[in-house]
Amino acid sequence: MRMYDLIRKKRDGERLAKEEIDWMIRSYTNGEIPDYQMSALMMAIYFRGMNEQETLNLTLAMADSGERLDLSAIHGIKVDKHSTGGVGDKTSLALVPLVASCGIPVAKMSGRGLGHTGGTIDKLESFSGFSTAIPVETFIKNVNTIGISIMGQTADLAPADKKLYALRDVTATVDNLSLIASSIMSKKLAAGADAIVLDVKTGSGAFMKSEEDAFALAEEMVTIGKNAGRQMHALITDMDQPLGYAIGNALEVKEAIATLNGSGPEDFTELVLALGSRMLIAGKKAEDVASAEKMLRQSIQNGDALRKLEAFVKAQGGTGEEVSHPEKLPAASMQIAVPSPQSGYISHIQCDEIGVCSLLLGGGRETKDSVIDLSVGLELKKKVGDYVEKGETLAVLHANDQEKAGQAEERFLRAYRFSETQPPKRPMIFGEI
Amino acid sequence: MRMYDLIRKKRDGERLAKEEIDWMIRSYTNGEIPDYQMSALMMAIYFRGMNEQETLNLTLAMADSGERLDLSAIHGIKVDKHSTGGVGDKTSLALVPLVASCGIPVAKMSGRGLGHTGGTIDKLESFSGFSTAIPVETFIKNVNTIGISIMGQTADLAPADKKLYALRDVTATVDNLSLIASSIMSKKLAAGADAIVLDVKTGSGAFMKSEEDAFALAEEMVTIGKNAGRQMHALITDMDQPLGYAIGNALEVKEAIATLNGSGPEDFTELVLALGSRMLIAGKKAEDVASAEKMLRQSIQNGDALRKLEAFVKAQGGTGEEVSHPEKLPAASMQIAVPSPQSGYISHIQCDEIGVCSLLLGGGRETKDSVIDLSVGLELKKKVGDYVEKGETLAVLHANDQEKAGQAEERFLRAYRFSETQPPKRPMIFGEI
Repeated sequence: MRMYDLIRKKRDGERLAKEEIDWMIRSYTNGEIPDYQMSALMMAIYFRGMNEQETLNLTLAMADSGERLDLSAIHGIKVDKHSTGGVGDKTSLALVPLVASCGIPVAKMSGRGLGHTGGTIDKLESFSGFSTAIPVETFIKNVNTIGISIMGQTADLAPADKKLYALRDVTATVDNLSLIASSIMSKKLAAGADAIVLDVKTGSGAFMKSEEDAFALAEEMVTIGKNAGRQMHALITDMDQPLGYAIGNALEVKEAIATLNGSGPEDFTELVLALGSRMLIAGKKAEDVASAEKMLRQSIQNGDALRKLEAFVKAQGGTGEEVSHPEKLPAASMQIAVPSPQSGYISHIQCDEIGVCSLLLGGGRETKDSVIDLSVGLELKKKVGDYVEKGETLAVLHANDQEKAGQAEERFLRAYRFSETQPPKRPMIFGEI
Repeated sequence: MRMYDLIRKKRDGERLAKEEIDWMIRSYTNGEIPDYQMSALMMAIYFRGMNEQETLNLTLAMADSGERLDLSAIHGIKVDKHSTGGVGDKTSLALVPLVASCGIPVAKMSGRGLGHTGGTIDKLESFSGFSTAIPVETFIKNVNTIGISIMGQTADLAPADKKLYALRDVTATVDNLSLIASSIMSKKLAAGADAIVLDVKTGSGAFMKSEEDAFALAEEMVTIGKNAGRQMHALITDMDQPLGYAIGNALEVKEAIATLNGSGPEDFTELVLALGSRMLIAGKKAEDVASAEKMLRQSIQNGDALRKLEAFVKAQGGTGEEVSHPEKLPAASMQIAVPSPQSGYISHIQCDEIGVCSLLLGGGRETKDSVIDLSVGLELKKKVGDYVEKGETLAVLHANDQEKAGQAEERFLRAYRFSETQPPKRPMIFGEI
């Protein structure tokens, strides 16, 4: 087989066979196919697309490029969850202990944040002593004993995807549905869960800006997962403004704890219950959404969910005391209120720009090697649809550096739009696949 | 400037600005832009194309990526000629001395052959002692004294094109008219002539198989040249069967000498006169094709053209005695007649396959480092439209190795097609731009 022939085939709109895709991914991972041929193929795929069979084969080849995680030692139906990411997305922090408290074994691999979106692992490190750098044996043991564990992605999980994504990232070949879907799903399949619940975001803070694209991506991923023999659920949810009110690592942990206490923001609570109920159904703990939501609410009310979070943090090296004493979480030295420059309804918040504000304050990574400040971030006071008087506080910046705070405030104000009339309310959940 | 942004722009169908193309070619030549980004851009150009301005700017940037040849020390209008290549294409060997004998100064850079097509330099080395590895000073001096010189391409002539073509060759991004045209024209512009006559071939032995593609490529190159301030002429000519009867280095030299003697093949003579007349017009030695052809025929008849070839060979280290004694050219040890397997009209000759036969006999290069045998090749006895009896000789193979001859004969016979009726005659010249 010659890579040249595969590039030419795809360039001319032909289909790649399973053996061709398998050979290509194996040879690329080994370094036998150079980057310059792979990037040419990726651009040809950008223009010509891949059909369902090609997309499945690419996903499977990438999932098999390293070690698949073997979860067979865990009892019960393993349910994983994946979000396409956004600003203020602390969903896993609340969702994972919540469903675990209802009896779903959660064995999850998570990542760190890069750019304007945060990562679950960074947020979890706000708990003093907590670590996700645990051996697989501990990971499996924890799931079997307390029903929950989160570890960092191992280097050998779908290494072909890692290499290919890095190449696509610098060659403008990211934006293709089949490639995006196969990249996400290769890691999910390699991570070994029986069922996968997807949270596909849409709006100004999401990877998929339009509702149509978000549905298409969800459809693509569900198809891959089903073709690979997994039980699949996908919700298409809003990311046109930040989720909840808190953006920043420790601030988001605080909000997640409040949510497990029953006092979280309305939009975030709605999302957690919606995703959680699908996970309960997938794990055969509930028959329908109504009964699943009832179980979840009960677990919040009786404190089971919060206790599960505490047990989880302790099992991975933390003291866990922040769960009942959130004031012990890392806190910034300055709280700066940002007054509204005008009166009116908030009509739009440029969501990714709010993520950039948190980055500017020091709460995110510009590059892979940046050190992040867990204590900084933003606490929104007004969101889309709210009425605000001129001078009233729009948000509070949590900062440790006056200059950075100034830059973040300027950027923050440019992200807000006002109108005289109340804008129509966007739903939290756009649909389900 | 970031290469990523240029890839994305072109991917999305936008135009690249002159400063962007200049920066990109400079940075790629320096090694600051990696191959994997350039190949992604090339594939995007394959799908999106480039407009006239972009194509010109790419050509100029590549022409300026190394040293341009300074021909200002040569008196008169410098006329260059370029052929897109084919099988049995010994045109330069006859054309260059012929137009030089009519007063056109010819300062030409040529290349070596690769694969199934031959190269002018290899063919010229059939003259004992002849060399194109001469200093630029000698090259210029020879043109000013005897009116003619040919040298090998310097390493620093359009190095960006060299690097980019090698990349396109392995990433299936060769087949784009703008890229093909800019590659050829960057070298022609850097080689410094005032006027350029193009011979764009079409047919089974040509790079452009269809007449339509050949016209489009000619159009593209003429536009680039004119936009770069050069006088341009292009002929679209036939390469559906080998040119003339001889294929192989020394055999082609012999046929070129015969043509300058007035006894060359009809098709080849027609082509040489057609291209030569455009060169005479470009060099202001004739007003129209009729008077130019008259001058050329006269120079053949009175022996000027042949004497110019002899002077040229001598000026570059040869003895020149082969010009009046072609029997002294390198000759193969075996002449093997290939009999026709059937009676009938020859309806088609798969032209590139005949080139492969010469390669198999040892007359071409499989890789850049192959050593070639100047004496071997084929002498066709029958071409398309000729009637042949079963057993009559189709061609004579000139070989030095029995086994290679056997392989070549087998391949040769598969290239010939027969029919009961005489096929329509294809013209030698399809058109002019």
